[in-house]
Amino acid sequence: MVTDIRSTPVCILGLGLIGGSMMRALDASGASSFGYNRSSATVEHARADGHDASTDLAATLDRAADTDAVIVLATPVTTIEPIVSAIAEHAAGCLITDVISVKVPVAEIFRRLFPNARYVGGHPMAGSSLSGWEATDPALFTDAMWMVTTEDWTDAEDWRVVAGLARALGAAVVPAANDAHDRAVAAISHVPHLTAAATAAVGAAESALAIRLAAGSFRDGTRVAGTAPQLQRAMIEANGIAVLNTLSEVIDRLTAARDELRDHGTTQVLIDDGYRARHAYEAMANAPRVAITGVEPGAAGWQAEMRRQAHRGSVWLG
Amino acid sequence: MVTDIRSTPVCILGLGLIGGSMMRALDASGASSFGYNRSSATVEHARADGHDASTDLAATLDRAADTDAVIVLATPVTTIEPIVSAIAEHAAGCLITDVISVKVPVAEIFRRLFPNARYVGGHPMAGSSLSGWEATDPALFTDAMWMVTTEDWTDAEDWRVVAGLARALGAAVVPAANDAHDRAVAAISHVPHLTAAATAAVGAAESALAIRLAAGSFRDGTRVAGTAPQLQRAMIEANGIAVLNTLSEVIDRLTAARDELRDHGTTQVLIDDGYRARHAYEAMANAPRVAITGVEPGAAGWQAEMRRQAHRGSVWLG
Repeated sequence: MVTDIRSTPVCILGLGLIGGSMMRALDASGASSFGYNRSSATVEHARADGHDASTDLAATLDRAADTDAVIVLATPVTTIEPIVSAIAEHAAGCLITDVISVKVPVAEIFRRLFPNARYVGGHPMAGSSLSGWEATDPALFTDAMWMVTTEDWTDAEDWRVVAGLARALGAAVVPAANDAHDRAVAAISHVPHLTAAATAAVGAAESALAIRLAAGSFRDGTRVAGTAPQLQRAMIEANGIAVLNTLSEVIDRLTAARDELRDHGTTQVLIDDGYRARHAYEAMANAPRVAITGVEPGAAGWQAEMRRQAHRGSVWLG
Repeated sequence: MVTDIRSTPVCILGLGLIGGSMMRALDASGASSFGYNRSSATVEHARADGHDASTDLAATLDRAADTDAVIVLATPVTTIEPIVSAIAEHAAGCLITDVISVKVPVAEIFRRLFPNARYVGGHPMAGSSLSGWEATDPALFTDAMWMVTTEDWTDAEDWRVVAGLARALGAAVVPAANDAHDRAVAAISHVPHLTAAATAAVGAAESALAIRLAAGSFRDGTRVAGTAPQLQRAMIEANGIAVLNTLSEVIDRLTAARDELRDHGTTQVLIDDGYRARHAYEAMANAPRVAITGVEPGAAGWQAEMRRQAHRGSVWLG
């Protein structure tokens, strides 16, 4: 039984921004990590920086099985089916987590391809519009939020290990059910990528004069539109249902604002609501974090109690 | 005839973020400025910092007339009608510019209330979600873009003074017609405020869990929604026609993306267009500025030639 992430190896599959940053942070902290990446250029880059990386998935997974490593799936959701099948073949006994930005679709892939997996999902809320090994940063997770799947059937000890991995990397743990997570990230990440893309596309189509005049509101409001399209599409399209619902809400809000401006010359409702929402966000972001208390993994009903406290904004710091 | 802004006083009406920052920058550079603000708290704050400020508009304008000062209108567009009338009454001979984020509505107010004004509009592309004297910054305009109205009937010497003021504050001058400016800022500023507000409002309405998980895409994409609502509304609503057109384009793009996602499971068109647009913006923002060349204010057709070069992205550095 693994209880301290520094006493067990971590096997990272995919050494992009998230996986590579995890490898650098773990190795810097004295933990032991090894990893796989499809691209030999990335593997060479990681090795040149002193890390243990390979382009051989089967050999990497055999090693994970031999060392009872915790496996971290850190490739785009569109690529994971053959990797999940390979884990089932080579390292069926290992505890598995992931860092993918949608959780229901990943859980469904496990249900279909590897139903008996020891799988506890995760999602660190850390990213940037950069990607690849060059962008990796061992401090990427410091004070970040890290969602860990907390369903009624989640195993307490496996949850502790995955939550411990997030904590060891400096993150605070947000326990949540997969579907609640997917609705939340549609609202605060996936749809904001689409509004950024629309804002950028319409602004740039106006004229070179417009782009020349662009200042803070355009620069910040369109930043994430510069993320590699395949990464954006992988997360947005995998979360299609939740994105459709939230995107429709945004379209409805903008349409109502347009009609109000056209018919009454005002944008008060949307501007006031946006202002309040932004300040509510800033207040929560700047407030001291409130720890989930009075519940330990394994106690009766611990999963529901953790979700209840997290739904109000508290985080697990255990 | 004024040809160097450091040899003539600048009278600033409104000492908020833009007007206050101008006062601090001018005084720091050895130029002479004095100003008016309605709020005595702001005036006291400015005086405590060593500046020359008053709550008496008529006396301030009489002084502008006596010293042949350049007058800068730096209050929200919703407040300027009585101020324009007061200038006509007290300082009718002074050259006037403004820093308001819409230009056609301001020009129309002058046409109606003070048709013979020596007025050359301006708009520095510098702001923040902060406001008030506390937020002022003498470096606010360094390397910023500063639109200066350049119509076929713009007076060359008056244009030189207003452009010289922008240059003295460290900005590059973007010559443009008022209507082209208003379309451009609808696309790169006013509509981005509305998309930020919609993104913030929908995200915050989801759950405290969602706000807790919010990271970079939400933080940056909603930043300007935190700007004081009356400032946002003043600029957006004054530019109603251009905003309506551009906002409709954004709604159309988002609706097309929703339909594409629902019917075909993809967001490729919008994500690819947004990615290209963002990188085109970054390329222009990071490229060396190209100076407008081969034309001087006062030469035959100088206004049209300046607009032509600015429309391609060049700036006046003369």
